Amino acid sequence: MSLKLTILGCHSATPRVNTHPTSQFLEIKNHHFLIDCGEGTQVLLRKFKVKFSKIKHIFISHLHGDHFFGLVGLISTFRLLNRITELHIYGPKGIKEIITLQLKLSNSWTNYPLLFHELTSKNSELIFEDTKVEVFTIPLDHRVYTNGFLFKEKLGERKLNMEQISKYKEIEVCDFQNLKNGKDFRFQNGTIIKNKELTLNPIPPKSYAYCSDTAYFPKIVSIIQNVNCLYHEATFLEGKKQLALKTKHSTALQAANIAKQANAKQLIIGHYSGRYKNIEEFKIEADTIYENTQLAESGKIFEIN
Amino acid sequence: MSLKLTILGCHSATPRVNTHPTSQFLEIKNHHFLIDCGEGTQVLLRKFKVKFSKIKHIFISHLHGDHFFGLVGLISTFRLLNRITELHIYGPKGIKEIITLQLKLSNSWTNYPLLFHELTSKNSELIFEDTKVEVFTIPLDHRVYTNGFLFKEKLGERKLNMEQISKYKEIEVCDFQNLKNGKDFRFQNGTIIKNKELTLNPIPPKSYAYCSDTAYFPKIVSIIQNVNCLYHEATFLEGKKQLALKTKHSTALQAANIAKQANAKQLIIGHYSGRYKNIEEFKIEADTIYENTQLAESGKIFEIN
Repeated sequence: MSLKLTILGCHSATPRVNTHPTSQFLEIKNHHFLIDCGEGTQVLLRKFKVKFSKIKHIFISHLHGDHFFGLVGLISTFRLLNRITELHIYGPKGIKEIITLQLKLSNSWTNYPLLFHELTSKNSELIFEDTKVEVFTIPLDHRVYTNGFLFKEKLGERKLNMEQISKYKEIEVCDFQNLKNGKDFRFQNGTIIKNKELTLNPIPPKSYAYCSDTAYFPKIVSIIQNVNCLYHEATFLEGKKQLALKTKHSTALQAANIAKQANAKQLIIGHYSGRYKNIEEFKIEADTIYENTQLAESGKIFEIN
Repeated sequence: MSLKLTILGCHSATPRVNTHPTSQFLEIKNHHFLIDCGEGTQVLLRKFKVKFSKIKHIFISHLHGDHFFGLVGLISTFRLLNRITELHIYGPKGIKEIITLQLKLSNSWTNYPLLFHELTSKNSELIFEDTKVEVFTIPLDHRVYTNGFLFKEKLGERKLNMEQISKYKEIEVCDFQNLKNGKDFRFQNGTIIKNKELTLNPIPPKSYAYCSDTAYFPKIVSIIQNVNCLYHEATFLEGKKQLALKTKHSTALQAANIAKQANAKQLIIGHYSGRYKNIEEFKIEADTIYENTQLAESGKIFEIN
């Protein structure tokens, strides 16, 4: 199964009637992750018919309003919808205080467990892991403490090569899990068949890297090397390169440059400044040095294969 | 000039695609007041083409999310729009801490003066006054500390009765302001003409009372007596009277009852629970005991004469 990424909002700064601040919904190995949560995210989740009650983990890159002002409202809505399953919030130190202060003063503490995982490290670290998925931080270079996130499938089980297996009637169904786990097969007489003769390589694991907001920051390249899909912010075009530098944002060309260095299979750009009326220009600029760039747009779904 | 009230959002609880939490924009004597600020208010201000840079005073009734989660975003947007004029926030104690904590952690303090007026009194008090307008709190009965707001024009100057004045060539233009201020006219020989013979009564001042959220609470009747327009929450219909009691909200019938007791000239109801698909039922219920009820709807403008 592919990863499925739904772009909710993909513009920078303030919410407007037809453009929305950053938020994305990622489906990976039966997980439903929300990445950033600008004002109005819960309405976009409804608009695009995302089953948002399934969200158990929310990742907040940084504490600029266009990336988290919608979080407290979503948490409150979960309460009103009588949520009982726990909700994990990953974000910069301070996020717990912001949310809990508002819930305390509105006398509306959640009726479900709300668990905060506050981030402070300047190095990439593993912040979520289960049997199938890992999530790492990608420290970025912005005006405040900011992390991107790298979502990685783990390498799955080996696949049974039934054509080979069927040649040996000694191999029974109860042996299959050992084969999937990579073990060789041993006959009662001690003869061994190597695992590789009986199984095929697992489907290569897929990965998605989310990098917003950041200045051009080549240090991240080693962390996201060979990623299947990279979302990288592109707030400006090269004509505003100095402004990008000053505000610690990136241009479309810089985003493409990172994608190229990282050998990313696909690049999605977004976080467009409201000054640009035609976002096609971002793709045109990125295309000059990287061949597989797509534009984030509200409601657009990307299948990452 | 009449008061002009623009309904931005008028539903309770969570924002949805087509219904929005509470917010209103009131124009009164060249003031532009924002009343409550649920999530998404800034987008509605844009959608309905309200000149929101003119807002200098924001009144927050209480700290439930559907009445203030949009405030921090609006404050941030004013900063991004390079606002320099001061902004006054009136609301329950705690509102300053909530906003300043978020601005501090996002390292984006406003570049304009942001002044908080925190409310704690359980009695009606004057919280804003200039030469033309007064604003009083209306203490309400809700699950957390809540105030409604009474916006009152002050009695204006008397109007010159030019038909009468033209009979006396001794009365000159330089005397007009004294007449408007209610003074009698004195001839050089000492004779006096009473002010009432030379002027007409000023236009009666208008008033608007905003009451949300609250249980049925007849104590407010004396504060809002004879108000020109009353907005009173009506979260439920009478069939859910017990739920209204439990959650400290009102039914449409109770809102109408308050309007009737207060001799309000006009009633607007809103803050509808999302369970009702047809809000016309609210008007039908209120109409049974009060004859001038209108339904709040997003984008609807009321001229209060």
